[in-house]
Amino acid sequence: MNPMALSYDQHFQSAIARLKMENRYRIFANLERDAARFPTALWRPEGEEHAPREVTIWCSNDYLAMGGHPASLDAARDALERHGAGAGGTRNISGTHHPIVELEAELSDLHGKPAALVFTSGWVSNLASISTIATLLPNCLILSDALNHNSMIEGVRRSGCEKQVWRHNDVDHLEELLQAAGRDRAKLIVFESLYSMDGDIAPVEKIVALAEKYNALTYVDEVHAVGMYGARGGGICQREGVESRVDVIEGTLAKGFGALGGYIAASPAIVDAVRSYAPQFIFTTTLPPMVAACARAAVRHLKHSGEERARHQHMALLTKHALRAAGLPVMDNVSHIVPVMVGDAARCKAASDLLLRRHSIYIQPINYPTVAIGTERLRITPTPRHDEAHVAELVEAMVDVWSTLGLPFTESHVIPLQARASASRGPCAYLELKNAAE
Amino acid sequence: MNPMALSYDQHFQSAIARLKMENRYRIFANLERDAARFPTALWRPEGEEHAPREVTIWCSNDYLAMGGHPASLDAARDALERHGAGAGGTRNISGTHHPIVELEAELSDLHGKPAALVFTSGWVSNLASISTIATLLPNCLILSDALNHNSMIEGVRRSGCEKQVWRHNDVDHLEELLQAAGRDRAKLIVFESLYSMDGDIAPVEKIVALAEKYNALTYVDEVHAVGMYGARGGGICQREGVESRVDVIEGTLAKGFGALGGYIAASPAIVDAVRSYAPQFIFTTTLPPMVAACARAAVRHLKHSGEERARHQHMALLTKHALRAAGLPVMDNVSHIVPVMVGDAARCKAASDLLLRRHSIYIQPINYPTVAIGTERLRITPTPRHDEAHVAELVEAMVDVWSTLGLPFTESHVIPLQARASASRGPCAYLELKNAAE
Ligand SMILES: Cc1ncc(COP(=O)(O)O)c(C=O)c1O
Ligand SMILES: Cc1ncc(COP(=O)(O)O)c(C=O)c1O
Repeated sequence: MNPMALSYDQHFQSAIARLKMENRYRIFANLERDAARFPTALWRPEGEEHAPREVTIWCSNDYLAMGGHPASLDAARDALERHGAGAGGTRNISGTHHPIVELEAELSDLHGKPAALVFTSGWVSNLASISTIATLLPNCLILSDALNHNSMIEGVRRSGCEKQVWRHNDVDHLEELLQAAGRDRAKLIVFESLYSMDGDIAPVEKIVALAEKYNALTYVDEVHAVGMYGARGGGICQREGVESRVDVIEGTLAKGFGALGGYIAASPAIVDAVRSYAPQFIFTTTLPPMVAACARAAVRHLKHSGEERARHQHMALLTKHALRAAGLPVMDNVSHIVPVMVGDAARCKAASDLLLRRHSIYIQPINYPTVAIGTERLRITPTPRHDEAHVAELVEAMVDVWSTLGLPFTESHVIPLQARASASRGPCAYLELKNAAE
Repeated sequence: MNPMALSYDQHFQSAIARLKMENRYRIFANLERDAARFPTALWRPEGEEHAPREVTIWCSNDYLAMGGHPASLDAARDALERHGAGAGGTRNISGTHHPIVELEAELSDLHGKPAALVFTSGWVSNLASISTIATLLPNCLILSDALNHNSMIEGVRRSGCEKQVWRHNDVDHLEELLQAAGRDRAKLIVFESLYSMDGDIAPVEKIVALAEKYNALTYVDEVHAVGMYGARGGGICQREGVESRVDVIEGTLAKGFGALGGYIAASPAIVDAVRSYAPQFIFTTTLPPMVAACARAAVRHLKHSGEERARHQHMALLTKHALRAAGLPVMDNVSHIVPVMVGDAARCKAASDLLLRRHSIYIQPINYPTVAIGTERLRITPTPRHDEAHVAELVEAMVDVWSTLGLPFTESHVIPLQARASASRGPCAYLELKNAAE
């Protein structure tokens, strides 16, 4: 290193020191996933010489556990043997391999759209598509939901277009802005169908109706819904019957579908324009055949099988009820996300640490900038591979942590003694009770 | 679709029409890679009902054919069985799996840097790292080589910092700009070690010396050099002995290493700052374990084995000599890239089409915006898996295409009759001659 570079390093060091001071410094948990035993994994404590420890993962976005599904594994293995490890090029320069072409056809069918385009991630798909679509429209106004994901904000920003932010899920506010802009100006409404940190769902039908009324294009991020909602796993718009009225559906292959990559499904003209103009798509190596094949297998499987979706919703409901019955402050929503409010970065991290070290339960604290300051939380994501014993264990551990750290329980705070006393992994009485009630 | 959206679609359609008019509309070749038989692959003609055809790929960036190497395949297969298909989360939220931690350690060792950080692609690594590093320095001036890759330009742009462009590889110009900025201002010099379209190599030692003289940070993109140059495959800086004097080395796992992903290797403070601040790193799912494991196996293998590098250089040299001897306008350089100049988009595409349809040789035309208008070319990338028979076939086909289309041959244009007459796949006399001569 250039010895003078020391003066540069100071700036980076003080940037890190700031994060530490604000309790926002992140330490990544080193996890060894086990396809066969998910959600059980091995955790290697940072910088410690200890042997790895078995933990239960409760915060994965492998929502449906498709990352370990035989259909996915078989497809990945087969593609690896046949086509090798990598794509060998960008899409244009020798990197359009057969599995990615097939994957795009599968996704176009999934959403009932005439075309689809795959990117290396959901993050890149939002950056690339929002910026390219908006840039190709003259004087486009982007109307962006206040809680949109970073990747969408980056897309808006990269477009250089004028942006107006509508209050989260507030269709009246959206209508005001649409009306003010007028029918004749090009307008792109960007929003998510399911917001992953609160687990709330957008009023997609109303948004689409407004777009039609005021002649705006709609772009919806279904990253936390694809695979999980709709009769074929197409997401919230599919479930609500408005898929054909939305212009661009964006999704990920890395969460519900358990692999890697992102995509859009839209009209041939939009897809071809993004394909042809987006540098984020053009100047990068294609996803490997094994990733494309395995994502496609997951999409295909979930088109026909509703089992994973049903069990996913069941486990999410069960977990919410059990935690609530134990007096834990579960935030209300109608989705598979189970956020438990803490409201302070340091205490959120302390709760997560205690869960991991004392109870071998891994739930990453969610702090700023992922959520607003004062709304720090533990975000729990039950999967079809969690069972009732896992839930009982979780409730017990959370109650212990809440008590140990003096975190507030809710009003309805009636902690069943079983939750504290039961041997770990035995189902608790209240689990069955609550589940039966709904 | 919103019926009014038709008026929107017009804009996208006319954007595509513009590309077609300028001969820049890209049609992707649908290729079925065959790990065992690379560079042979199956090509499916677009929209045609024909059976797939066997072709020879001559433009892959799987430069060392590591995508089909047993070490890579074994590692990918093993990680798939053990860890499943996906990472299951972002780095912070349950996605830091063991293989990615091991990969980062491997890359840090590869470049003799204390730390490394992996991204979902080389494209993202440049965007994320350049913008974050520059943003964290007060009033940073970015000095950018005129021919830097799109991903670097996006990083510069995203930083919002002042940028000055120095003439390609012109260290005198760079010095002027450094001097004008003065020692005290924060300065980041960004450049590539090997420019992939011309195949020329940057004067890395001189650039580093200037950075030291004027107290600037250096950021070098070694995307087209890692795996391929240096005693351990660390790239051009390693070969030139300046690795320790460069501040940030950026590379890809998708070309020389045959997998997917990108990375930086640098000081702990820089790596930790990018890890902690870059949204492009924070808000996206981690590379799958199988991809990380397979990339690591390739990096490891190429640290110890020089065989692939030697054969790669040998085949590149052989190909250049053979094409030159046949009078084809090979651009001069000292790297593994073999660019053959055409200088016109339509003729470049016609040459590529004829090579594919008549000779079953796949070389994608390289047109604007990848290269400047008027410098359109066929860019040939020999790999260790190409042999002399492949080269003979290539020369013959190129000569035929050049003659058919009336493209100019060079002065030294003495096309050996063998090149036209020899049965395909028999080595030509001039191949041996030229090769022996160097
Ligand atoms: C709403 C939303 N969109 C996009 C992304 C990015 O998707 P990916 O992980 O595939 O990059 C995420 C999270 O990762 C997200 O939460
Ligand atoms: C110089 C350079 N940097 C970065 C990249 C991006 O790397 P990746 O393909 O891993 O995204 C490329 C090409 O793809 C490149 O040519």
